Amino acid sequence: MKKHNFSAGPCILPEEVLQRASEAVINFNDDNLSLIEISHRSKPFVDVIEKARALALELLGLENKGYEALFLHGGASTQFLMTAYNLLNKKAAYLNTGTWSSKAIKEASLFGELIEVASSKDKNFNYIPKNFDIPNDVDYFHCTSNNTIYGTQMKSFPETSAPLICDMSSDIFSRQLDFSKFDLIYAGAQKNMGPAGATLVVVKKDILGKVERSIPSMLNYQIHIEKDSMFNTPSVFAVYVSMLTLQWLKDLGGISFIEKVNEKKSTLLYSEIDRNPLFKGVVSKEDRSHMNATFTLENDSLAKKFDTLWQEANINGLHGHRSVGGYRASMYNALPLYSVQALVDVMQELERQA
Amino acid sequence: MKKHNFSAGPCILPEEVLQRASEAVINFNDDNLSLIEISHRSKPFVDVIEKARALALELLGLENKGYEALFLHGGASTQFLMTAYNLLNKKAAYLNTGTWSSKAIKEASLFGELIEVASSKDKNFNYIPKNFDIPNDVDYFHCTSNNTIYGTQMKSFPETSAPLICDMSSDIFSRQLDFSKFDLIYAGAQKNMGPAGATLVVVKKDILGKVERSIPSMLNYQIHIEKDSMFNTPSVFAVYVSMLTLQWLKDLGGISFIEKVNEKKSTLLYSEIDRNPLFKGVVSKEDRSHMNATFTLENDSLAKKFDTLWQEANINGLHGHRSVGGYRASMYNALPLYSVQALVDVMQELERQA
Repeated sequence: MKKHNFSAGPCILPEEVLQRASEAVINFNDDNLSLIEISHRSKPFVDVIEKARALALELLGLENKGYEALFLHGGASTQFLMTAYNLLNKKAAYLNTGTWSSKAIKEASLFGELIEVASSKDKNFNYIPKNFDIPNDVDYFHCTSNNTIYGTQMKSFPETSAPLICDMSSDIFSRQLDFSKFDLIYAGAQKNMGPAGATLVVVKKDILGKVERSIPSMLNYQIHIEKDSMFNTPSVFAVYVSMLTLQWLKDLGGISFIEKVNEKKSTLLYSEIDRNPLFKGVVSKEDRSHMNATFTLENDSLAKKFDTLWQEANINGLHGHRSVGGYRASMYNALPLYSVQALVDVMQELERQA
Repeated sequence: MKKHNFSAGPCILPEEVLQRASEAVINFNDDNLSLIEISHRSKPFVDVIEKARALALELLGLENKGYEALFLHGGASTQFLMTAYNLLNKKAAYLNTGTWSSKAIKEASLFGELIEVASSKDKNFNYIPKNFDIPNDVDYFHCTSNNTIYGTQMKSFPETSAPLICDMSSDIFSRQLDFSKFDLIYAGAQKNMGPAGATLVVVKKDILGKVERSIPSMLNYQIHIEKDSMFNTPSVFAVYVSMLTLQWLKDLGGISFIEKVNEKKSTLLYSEIDRNPLFKGVVSKEDRSHMNATFTLENDSLAKKFDTLWQEANINGLHGHRSVGGYRASMYNALPLYSVQALVDVMQELERQA
């Protein structure tokens, strides 16, 4: 029986996507060849990557608005340096909301002056800073929309005249936003899109070409745009599975549909965390993530019993990140509501047995 | 019926590897979870990447010799700049034997002075330059062991006091060499290893740490070594399939075994190219690649008939690269001898019909 998969990433993907991906590894497109042994320049694969790029823009509502969608290598960690390589002339502003923001700041600092406009490090990143100022003269402002490790999520984004860059690795395609407010969005595929190995970059073309430094080809957004995201061999399998997942989301009704499902799931779990006297949430209520719910036991001596109960209930991936401890339930797009119910049932069973 | 797959890359992989990869996409390790939806830090996947790294060193005979094997993102194209970023202080020497060497030179030139010790560009890269001098004072010497596009292969490597760096993307694990002569070997996975999306780097640790510049983390070999090739989420599926393919090769008898098979295949094909009056080889005989055989028709008017014949014979991927024209038969490790025989049969059938 399939597990209830609360893994923080790589994470659950839709069953029908996994089925089709498995079949494509043997016989893709009825050509009696595997997806992974055909030329990436063959028409069947070019169709896949073009469809994936088009679906990404369509789902975000960014068609015909001057944006390009690219599927690149290297994960969000490569975007930490690539954004700065391409866009940082003198100084840039960063909001520090956790591990990934901190890493983005570290990598970008090799390329110019960085201004940390605010940080929630003082409270182990358990809230999102508000009411910070972004200087007018920065090359861009960078933030992380959802903090997978700590379980916080930005509910609104600052108004700024500077280009707005956002790492949406762990909540892209999960909620409706006015994505046209962003100038560059990036996201590792391995949460709401597909397997590890591909990274989606959605970039407004008119912000590019404004730095003086020479940029190596593989790190240059303009070259990837000119080459239709095929400057070198893409991560074929990861792009294919991403395309299938984006199509699955579109068929369901797109982001506005999945947002409602995600709200139901997170409301169900957070309500139980707040109701059940054995548990408490880790982060400020107004900043709680709909993707990653972090919580702890009020009494650590119940940990062994709780761990046994959820593992017996066929639940996977509930341990918190080592920098937070406790528990983390990741509820990405493909996680069904009944999996959250299964977890809530276990929390109530613990209450009965305690 | 499965096609005879002569694709230049991504390319043919062993049938049993594809079968296991397909199954793992549904249920990996009998855990009722897909390989692509589990944490990359879970024991089952850590075991996979550690095994892949160990097998790479074992097959190359580089265990306990100061080398590390890494599975990184970004393809060989990222290695073009990463080698220079990590190793180029003042100047480096490059041998230019084709498209990929030229690209490596272009990317590295951002980081220091480059000396092109020799080039075969004068004859559209149809031979490997010999008898060139490598200056004593360079930081390293870089070459490409096999030129996928042109069909040439280096049969010997220069003796030099400088660190020897080699792009072995299209012939790694295909022939026995004294790999301990090399200080850094890199190879995109998508020829003799696995799907596109992972890149093997085998590096002798003592050549690192000698440049002054600051290196972004994702481009820094030392950081990837310190993090056991898990600085960020690896390309999980591509690493898994690479591990299976390396295990398949080991079980067959390793490089010394497959080298004999590869020699049989290429001898069969080149003998027919030389015997059959309708065909001629593109490159100097002594430099012919055992992986990629390039050839043309003596009389272009037979092209349509030949194309029909090989396509009817269930052969895939025989068209030459646009920069060479004609035909290219790529005979990577997983291509069976009977596929080469099928191609030779078609060439002889054309001779009968012509």
